[in-house]
Amino acid sequence: MIDEKQLCVSAIRVVSAEAIQKANSGHPGIVLGAAPMAFELFSRQLVHDSACPDWANRDRFILSAGHGSMLLYSLLHLFGYGLSMDDLKQFRQFGSLTPGHPEYGHTVGVEATTGPLGQGVSMAVGMAMAEDHLAATFNKEGYAVVDHYTYALCGDGCMMEGISSEAASLAGTLKLNKLIVLYDRNRISIEGDTATSFSEDVPARYRAYGWNVIVVADGEDMDAVGKAIAEAKACKSAPSLIVVDTKIGAKSPLEGSEKTHGEPLGAANIQAMKESLSYYPDKEFYIPEEAYAYVNKCMEKGKQAHADWDAMMEGYKAAYPELYNLYETYHAKDVASLIDVDAVAAKLTATATRSSSGQVLNAIAPMVPQLFGGSADLAPSNKTELSGEGFYSKENPTGRNIHFGVREHAMAAIANGMALHGGVLPYVATFLVFSDYLRHSVRLSALMNQRVLYVLTHDSIGVGEDGPTHQPIEHVASFRVMPNVAVFRPADGKETAAAYLYGVKANGPTLLALSRQNLPLYEGSSIEEAQKGAYVLYGGEKDADAIIIATGSEVDLAVKAAKAMEEKGKAVRVVSMPCMDVFEKQSAEYKESVLPAAITARVSVEAGTTFGWERYVGDKGIALGIDHFGASAPGDVLFKTFGFTVENVVAAVEKVLNA
Amino acid sequence: MIDEKQLCVSAIRVVSAEAIQKANSGHPGIVLGAAPMAFELFSRQLVHDSACPDWANRDRFILSAGHGSMLLYSLLHLFGYGLSMDDLKQFRQFGSLTPGHPEYGHTVGVEATTGPLGQGVSMAVGMAMAEDHLAATFNKEGYAVVDHYTYALCGDGCMMEGISSEAASLAGTLKLNKLIVLYDRNRISIEGDTATSFSEDVPARYRAYGWNVIVVADGEDMDAVGKAIAEAKACKSAPSLIVVDTKIGAKSPLEGSEKTHGEPLGAANIQAMKESLSYYPDKEFYIPEEAYAYVNKCMEKGKQAHADWDAMMEGYKAAYPELYNLYETYHAKDVASLIDVDAVAAKLTATATRSSSGQVLNAIAPMVPQLFGGSADLAPSNKTELSGEGFYSKENPTGRNIHFGVREHAMAAIANGMALHGGVLPYVATFLVFSDYLRHSVRLSALMNQRVLYVLTHDSIGVGEDGPTHQPIEHVASFRVMPNVAVFRPADGKETAAAYLYGVKANGPTLLALSRQNLPLYEGSSIEEAQKGAYVLYGGEKDADAIIIATGSEVDLAVKAAKAMEEKGKAVRVVSMPCMDVFEKQSAEYKESVLPAAITARVSVEAGTTFGWERYVGDKGIALGIDHFGASAPGDVLFKTFGFTVENVVAAVEKVLNA
Repeated sequence: MIDEKQLCVSAIRVVSAEAIQKANSGHPGIVLGAAPMAFELFSRQLVHDSACPDWANRDRFILSAGHGSMLLYSLLHLFGYGLSMDDLKQFRQFGSLTPGHPEYGHTVGVEATTGPLGQGVSMAVGMAMAEDHLAATFNKEGYAVVDHYTYALCGDGCMMEGISSEAASLAGTLKLNKLIVLYDRNRISIEGDTATSFSEDVPARYRAYGWNVIVVADGEDMDAVGKAIAEAKACKSAPSLIVVDTKIGAKSPLEGSEKTHGEPLGAANIQAMKESLSYYPDKEFYIPEEAYAYVNKCMEKGKQAHADWDAMMEGYKAAYPELYNLYETYHAKDVASLIDVDAVAAKLTATATRSSSGQVLNAIAPMVPQLFGGSADLAPSNKTELSGEGFYSKENPTGRNIHFGVREHAMAAIANGMALHGGVLPYVATFLVFSDYLRHSVRLSALMNQRVLYVLTHDSIGVGEDGPTHQPIEHVASFRVMPNVAVFRPADGKETAAAYLYGVKANGPTLLALSRQNLPLYEGSSIEEAQKGAYVLYGGEKDADAIIIATGSEVDLAVKAAKAMEEKGKAVRVVSMPCMDVFEKQSAEYKESVLPAAITARVSVEAGTTFGWERYVGDKGIALGIDHFGASAPGDVLFKTFGFTVENVVAAVEKVLNA
Repeated sequence: MIDEKQLCVSAIRVVSAEAIQKANSGHPGIVLGAAPMAFELFSRQLVHDSACPDWANRDRFILSAGHGSMLLYSLLHLFGYGLSMDDLKQFRQFGSLTPGHPEYGHTVGVEATTGPLGQGVSMAVGMAMAEDHLAATFNKEGYAVVDHYTYALCGDGCMMEGISSEAASLAGTLKLNKLIVLYDRNRISIEGDTATSFSEDVPARYRAYGWNVIVVADGEDMDAVGKAIAEAKACKSAPSLIVVDTKIGAKSPLEGSEKTHGEPLGAANIQAMKESLSYYPDKEFYIPEEAYAYVNKCMEKGKQAHADWDAMMEGYKAAYPELYNLYETYHAKDVASLIDVDAVAAKLTATATRSSSGQVLNAIAPMVPQLFGGSADLAPSNKTELSGEGFYSKENPTGRNIHFGVREHAMAAIANGMALHGGVLPYVATFLVFSDYLRHSVRLSALMNQRVLYVLTHDSIGVGEDGPTHQPIEHVASFRVMPNVAVFRPADGKETAAAYLYGVKANGPTLLALSRQNLPLYEGSSIEEAQKGAYVLYGGEKDADAIIIATGSEVDLAVKAAKAMEEKGKAVRVVSMPCMDVFEKQSAEYKESVLPAAITARVSVEAGTTFGWERYVGDKGIALGIDHFGASAPGDVLFKTFGFTVENVVAAVEKVLNA
């Protein structure tokens, strides 16, 4: 009798190795080592329905060790997610459905883009938090509307990354028992035996975080993996780490060698593996019908679960119509339509834009109930607390504020996981200067087109006394260069509201760079216009002699300088440019209307690096900014010391006019 | 009888609180809570000599919780590091010696710039590694040339950051027994009780890393702290974590409250504290003579140790003259003079610049024996291994290669610690795309003017099959905006050598963005000229009709396009611009000679974001680049698909010529 499970595992191993060989590029080591546990998971544990990969209540699976992409693609092929054998043969080729690392939104069944280590397992924490929060919000006796597990598969590399430590510590505090992490412990990394750099006791570390830790001694033993997952599910008070001891490159002649990590095995080694596995040594890219048949049988359970859930939801709709409608609201794609902009505008005052952000967040919180987020231990400074909404915890899972702790990087990855999960709209916060800590997760938000709101306060030397370690100079520019990121630096409350309104519609992350210090609320500012990225805030009624382009707190200097120039008989237009990235997307006509090519006397003012401002001020213009680190002193002293004064802006305008 | 130690601790508490109050800004909480342990350390444990704060063999102390700066300043005042009471009164004012967070190079006695949490304790790991490596290299029986401890003081925030987890795990693997971390566990962070976000068992976690963990139940008990430090020193096989339970804002009426974290206590609370401590309630900024006298007594031990070391070094010089000279070489400020540039040039071939980097590193390794570094588990790809130099470990402490593990952020902070320690020249490596993970530590290298070489390979879509998660688009630009960072993207081996030669002279970090794919070795390239940031690589002999400015791998396209234009009768100059940052520092005359203002027909070519290129191509020019994420496919396919072809460069040049 055929052992169908082993047959499937051999099929995954062989076909994956062949695809990597054909591409002449890829990572066979983890594919071979983790194939049994991954197959056990997909075939007998994961509740999923490949006919409906978007089913909201499916179990989630993230391949945190994204370099093992061929393992995932082979599974998606076997389990009917729409990848053909031809797709597998196109591994790592331009335009194929099987890119080098799993890409969310590109390949059906991929739950998250992974590859940068530690990100996937941290996103899994976010998914588990979203599940837990939504379950508490919606489930009723007999109606388990939101009730699924989140699985991640990671390797030694993910375990070494600090981001996963941060995420695991928070997951332990939050007792996320629906989170199950499979750790493929093969003890080999690119530079060889992990003993040389990673001698720690990982199970003990995770126990210290409050996790339930189970060790499976032999990664080839699928029943043992299944039993461990059952134990993990039985634990109701903690997330589970299942440590599975495996051999990298298992079953190949190179088993145990770091050589299998990132290079094809070579045709001869694949042939030898096929022979030793007795897996069709004379065929290529071949999977027998028995394997497909077995998988189809395994898939019945998930299909049934999905059908049961659909039926249950009909009952839920009847029994709890209001909650059902709320559930629909939580999952609405069009969040903007939930927001009463006039009601938001009515809350705005002249204050620091970080406080404006707090006003906006609190104004929209009742309108957008899926808003769920918090700060990396800076809520009082970031002004991110949703009043009266409580803090999320095991004891209070419906709380909408999150204490992330001092863990910027995990916070951002968790937000990505929440956004990917759906049903919640995440926002996260820290000081702008510490955006460096979470930068790579912003990149993944952008790459995955995920709607995450990053609230980044204390946005310039206006930080003041905390000094250069806390004063962003280059951060706004550093995110302007990142594709698919909208960086807003609003000038006042209305522009702050605009940034949120843009953000809830965006197919990507929106960053808000917000002032510590108080700012005016301008007569000429506009929630509507600011969503275009740049607009004429002052002096638009007549032909201008010169243009001052400013962002954020420096719009005040620009307006005052324009008024001073009027007294000297010159018409100066002030363009507020809260978001370069969005302005770039506007039509040529709109751009010309804001920045007419004929007006070449231009000055930009921004309390940050001048890098990139040439695009708008042109060859004849002057960019005022700060291209060195700040200093410790009261913010107003620094603004004066470093030249951010009306006089200097006026002098620059006169200079460009006289050039 | 006066308890002099308690008197000193009270003095630190009161004067610090007063200075924070006067500044109306600062963080009294940790100052009050950690004052006893810090005073115990400075007075009875730390071997230091304030008369010679640069003494190479001093114990190092890093205040990782940098917001507690007033604690450090009060100690530096008491211990004679040159801070006067007037300096303390100028806390957080412009130009004062007492800025908001400790700044290395600004205030004598500050060993590292801290404030961004987790960085300090990770730098301490780097200092301990440098000490260990140098001790193994230089110490002889009877001559403990390098023999000191490294201490760090951190709070709950540092413990939550992933960077400290990474660093601690590596420190455990390396058994850095001369590293002693004091953990001020007050269980209060900005958002309140750490139980809400940080319920883990930190001692158990550190034991899992292989650390020796000691708990001191009462942070007021200086003898207990002293005893714990003695135990830590007695442990020869592991770094030590001393967990000291304290109360935030101790001895003030606000003891135990998060309100003491980041705001002045208020005059009334300070007065109440002075009264309850019986510490001169009617005086301000006052420290009695008894306190200074006691501290002076404590300082004798350090002075004597320094004198003994000086005498010992005289003996060492006589007994081991070659080693003594080598020690001097290791500590040479002028590293460049150690390098035989011709010998380096002789090693260069036409290859990928990551391989050129390997050639340069291996060529200079014998000339620059203080070179000490490695990769975050990508050495075979980064080409960073120094052949025949072995890997650093407890068993092989003279090994010059380091296995950092998959820990980019800690790696960079460790490099900062090594550079600060002195005696070693650190280099670290990862893929350029993962520079995001270590970005904030680069910022600290820059802020502290520390010479760290960052080897960042796989620098564009040339990465190929690994896909967009591994393809940097924005990273080179993202570092160009950071002050005091030199980002080199060399076109060939000679320019790679130039980057190293610049880097070993720089007062700041140098980043090398290096190709995965093979590149030519140009006739017109120059080790000397490339150190100016930009120069004419081709077509400089006659007046040019147009200029193509290119970096890295795209210089090849530029040269080929220039030659194609010659056939069309146009003279085109190719400017290779390996480093914008360095070019900006050149004289106006030199800049004009490379990029004459009269030639406005300009095209830039770089396989990265176009952001910022307007500075060089001007209003009439064209910037060729890629402003979106990449894709998974062979690198040459991507270059063609995304428009990096000779034809496209030629077309752009023709367009600007015809404009």
